Amino acid sequence: MTQPRALLFDVFGTVVDWRKSIMGNLERFFRSRGVPGDWEAFAAEWRALYQPAMAAVREGRRDYVILDVLHRENLDAVLAKRDLGGLNEAEKNQLNALWHRLDPWPDSAEGLRQLREKHVVAALSNGNIGMMANVARHGDLRWDAILGADIARDFKPKPAVYLRAAEALGLRPGECMMVAAHNEDLAAARALGLATAFILRADEHGPGQTTDLAPAQDWDVVTDSLTGLAARLAA
Amino acid sequence: MTQPRALLFDVFGTVVDWRKSIMGNLERFFRSRGVPGDWEAFAAEWRALYQPAMAAVREGRRDYVILDVLHRENLDAVLAKRDLGGLNEAEKNQLNALWHRLDPWPDSAEGLRQLREKHVVAALSNGNIGMMANVARHGDLRWDAILGADIARDFKPKPAVYLRAAEALGLRPGECMMVAAHNEDLAAARALGLATAFILRADEHGPGQTTDLAPAQDWDVVTDSLTGLAARLAA
Repeated sequence: MTQPRALLFDVFGTVVDWRKSIMGNLERFFRSRGVPGDWEAFAAEWRALYQPAMAAVREGRRDYVILDVLHRENLDAVLAKRDLGGLNEAEKNQLNALWHRLDPWPDSAEGLRQLREKHVVAALSNGNIGMMANVARHGDLRWDAILGADIARDFKPKPAVYLRAAEALGLRPGECMMVAAHNEDLAAARALGLATAFILRADEHGPGQTTDLAPAQDWDVVTDSLTGLAARLAA
Repeated sequence: MTQPRALLFDVFGTVVDWRKSIMGNLERFFRSRGVPGDWEAFAAEWRALYQPAMAAVREGRRDYVILDVLHRENLDAVLAKRDLGGLNEAEKNQLNALWHRLDPWPDSAEGLRQLREKHVVAALSNGNIGMMANVARHGDLRWDAILGADIARDFKPKPAVYLRAAEALGLRPGECMMVAAHNEDLAAARALGLATAFILRADEHGPGQTTDLAPAQDWDVVTDSLTGLAARLAA
């Protein structure tokens, strides 16, 4: 494997621990209002609506809208099911903005710092640019560029998202490596000629996780942290 | 003036000293090949073709192409005029890539660092994302996001470039401040409701500079460095 010029990172699950962040912040939000609930289940349910919501855009049944909009619609659905629809607009926006303040995994900021010394590092997320910029500020993550859904106006794993990212950096797909905790993301990237790095995040979905616990293909790198990736690429 | 949530920066001339960088690197490039020349004039001429080249896109006479492409066409024109067209393709690409390695003004990296503590800071340049990412790496400039021409697929001062930048950050135009050394850029931004900061860069075009030596309107801030802007916004 030749050294990739740029590393393109999936963010949710790969760089940030969305589940514990959302769960913890939901609990704080509702506890201060005296509302009991299973916030782990709420977070999982909110996230479960993410793929079907994007599918409408991917399949051309709906024009591109940013992920903040999809999150908000999904939030309304989850709240309604639990008879929590009575929150006011400001409170709902406050909850939706929790996706802008996701904590990184412990190795993420340092791993990115190391990787950035020799590689261009860019976010390649289905999150919108504003969300990704806020997540980066929150977690002190330093990106050279934020690419992804907003650039292609479509969602991964649609080919355009990967291709437009490489193009935005002035690189060929083969000069880029996709870094993700999800086999499906890497499969889409590999089909377009990108190199691939699988980051095992066995706790992304909590103790009961059943998906992405092992590499589904012989990815170019398999490791379990961004610092691990830095070590592998430096070796 | 309320505090802007985001500061959007013009880059060429405002954040980086393109002229001395290009001039110095042209001189080194051609000196190593034993070619004498007036590299100050070459740099000025290359840059002078920048606005007319973008005008074709702005006026709809040509589809959007990234600035790297326009720079290369303009380079070919300047070289041909000087009987330097015999450089090979790799050499021409090497010259074109000089726009990816522009030195910041002495106050830029520190000014951005200070400003980033309380504001989202983003590049809002006519340069493409890959160019801006490389300029930032070269000069150790830390952006929260790179916006601008590539996002809108058009060039400043077309309104879409400013509006799409605010939108990408999830902000209203009035929550953003345009920071530029050029009155025209600020006038376009103000017309759309952005706040404005004029950075006097009296040496951008060298000792004979005749343009942008004074604010043309009562911009919200007038200063002569990014650290000066940080001081004004903190006051």
